[in-house]
Amino acid sequence: MTTTLIAPQRFSPSASDESLPLLLKPFTGEVMNRPPVWFMRQAGRYMEEYRAIRSKVSFLELCKNPELSAEVSLQPWQAFHTDAVIMFCDILIPPEAMGMALDFTDHGPVFANPLRSAAQVDALRVPDPQESMPFVMDLIRRLRCELAGSPETALIGFAGAPWTLACYMIEGGTSKNFRHIKAWMYEDPASLHRLLDKLADTVIVYLNAQIAAGAQMVQLFDTWGGLLDEHGYRTFIMPYQKKVLDGLNRTQAPAVLYMNNGAHVLSAVLETTPDGLSVDDRTSLISLRSLANDSGQTGLVLQGNLDPIAMLSRPEVLKPLVQANLKTGGNTNYIFNVGHGLIPQTPPDNVKRVVEWIRSGELTTG
Amino acid sequence: MTTTLIAPQRFSPSASDESLPLLLKPFTGEVMNRPPVWFMRQAGRYMEEYRAIRSKVSFLELCKNPELSAEVSLQPWQAFHTDAVIMFCDILIPPEAMGMALDFTDHGPVFANPLRSAAQVDALRVPDPQESMPFVMDLIRRLRCELAGSPETALIGFAGAPWTLACYMIEGGTSKNFRHIKAWMYEDPASLHRLLDKLADTVIVYLNAQIAAGAQMVQLFDTWGGLLDEHGYRTFIMPYQKKVLDGLNRTQAPAVLYMNNGAHVLSAVLETTPDGLSVDDRTSLISLRSLANDSGQTGLVLQGNLDPIAMLSRPEVLKPLVQANLKTGGNTNYIFNVGHGLIPQTPPDNVKRVVEWIRSGELTTG
Repeated sequence: MTTTLIAPQRFSPSASDESLPLLLKPFTGEVMNRPPVWFMRQAGRYMEEYRAIRSKVSFLELCKNPELSAEVSLQPWQAFHTDAVIMFCDILIPPEAMGMALDFTDHGPVFANPLRSAAQVDALRVPDPQESMPFVMDLIRRLRCELAGSPETALIGFAGAPWTLACYMIEGGTSKNFRHIKAWMYEDPASLHRLLDKLADTVIVYLNAQIAAGAQMVQLFDTWGGLLDEHGYRTFIMPYQKKVLDGLNRTQAPAVLYMNNGAHVLSAVLETTPDGLSVDDRTSLISLRSLANDSGQTGLVLQGNLDPIAMLSRPEVLKPLVQANLKTGGNTNYIFNVGHGLIPQTPPDNVKRVVEWIRSGELTTG
Repeated sequence: MTTTLIAPQRFSPSASDESLPLLLKPFTGEVMNRPPVWFMRQAGRYMEEYRAIRSKVSFLELCKNPELSAEVSLQPWQAFHTDAVIMFCDILIPPEAMGMALDFTDHGPVFANPLRSAAQVDALRVPDPQESMPFVMDLIRRLRCELAGSPETALIGFAGAPWTLACYMIEGGTSKNFRHIKAWMYEDPASLHRLLDKLADTVIVYLNAQIAAGAQMVQLFDTWGGLLDEHGYRTFIMPYQKKVLDGLNRTQAPAVLYMNNGAHVLSAVLETTPDGLSVDDRTSLISLRSLANDSGQTGLVLQGNLDPIAMLSRPEVLKPLVQANLKTGGNTNYIFNVGHGLIPQTPPDNVKRVVEWIRSGELTTG
């Protein structure tokens, strides 16, 4: 019996590649004067320009209209000069394409028929993204066209991780105690694993389609990835993060794993070997860097992790917080971001300020 | 300059004290055939007997009526034979006594005038519990009378920890993103520290009054204690947990700290040196025990940490989960509990079963 080791694909750009947009330079390992900067949920309700468009169309209509979603995607880049544009979409678009009726209410997303039986899992299809979600790839191509004159700006695609998608699909929306998915976990783990595996297959083809359409980096969002203890993480969450990460065309675009609330399972998270790891503000970047180095992942790009609530502060309070974050991030293998999505109360002027402080180089790194 | 070291009071009962209720035996360090068992939120909506009383009075009326709150406190003990009775009350009673108008709605607690200014903090009083919350001490005395014939059963008092109380008082209720308390933290930390200190003073006299009235163990609930990173925890949360723990008459009753969502800061949590540490299901009891031993706290009592959602499972699924928990808890210095409060959908029969399994000794420890 022989063991076949398939080395996972890793994004490994050349530092001498002058055409590399700034967002991707941290993956070369070169020392940088300042990190790239973008914000999770950088397009959204806190921007007046976004609200103007949303007053005319529903959230789902916006997601499915490439002309409008392109406009919204570009708004923060135009207003604040972020180093990246992230496509405007929702992580629940693929579950809808798998066969689940989706709606967005004032209280968040709602699946009219949440998954509550193994038969429902079997009935879900692994959708062909080109057929069932063509508007996403259309959006990506449009955005690359719009950005053609700005090669220093990178375009980011994304998807929800299997566990987080399963949480929404089983709970039917946001949840206080996740009792339905946990019931499955305890009562019928085999069906839950089947669902998670199907979701991983779905996400792999979806993200690879995004990369093929022109996404220059992809981010896998595991918003509820920190819900369980380490044993639970290793059983139900990590294997599907890793399956997705291992299935992506990462020589073409780096894959960043966003792990929320996972400060208690960082060693295990590192075993998924993403190109980049994006963490929330409860995680110390210094501890994480140290753990990554200890595990041999010296080139791992860290992304984060300013508390998005800090973005609501007065400029004189905010500036040292951004400075402190840059210090912990370091002068290489690091992308500045918030630890969680910007909230609707964020003052747009603060987003503008943070980008300016970082771009100008007046804040020091490392 | 000399340093005065005041050795903190610790609960140190004698193993040969035959009058010790079972709940307190883990604090002696003796090896036990089976651990004591009780449940956070063991009295509550999942019990029909509770709902019958709540149909007649509001939640706050119930908290303030010692006759009714005694009846509710005793319901799970009478129905399931738990090893402890915990007084039925709410952690927000002291903030109300400090001067904040409190109401309970279907969506949870609401403070009509949340704290939003330093002047409001200064206006809060440190209440005399005997004067402003006499119904709590009355409840404790009543319960001790009711339990006089059952010396093997212990009575538990409790309070919310300063940080968690401050979260509610500043946010005005439950919060999605804690943006108001975090704004204080970033913008005006001095005022926040003043509030937390005032809350610590309030909680100390309140819990000592409970001990004086007859509480045989007290638990300090820090439900939101895991909200920040380690630096934030050490700055705003831990000092006030420690101040409270150090201020209690712990020779008379052990103090247990309940730390929710704190698996990422366990080493720091241990520095508060409680008599017992109660943790949620994201925390590994084995890792925690190992950390406690490494820090010289070999006698620390651990409490927890079965996922309360597991309590909704079929008995044949639930039993091995309880068994696994007892194994990780060990045969000494351990109290069985859930990792978070029981939820309204918990089948009462499962609570009964878990108590029976543990009391009968059919599940093995260690």
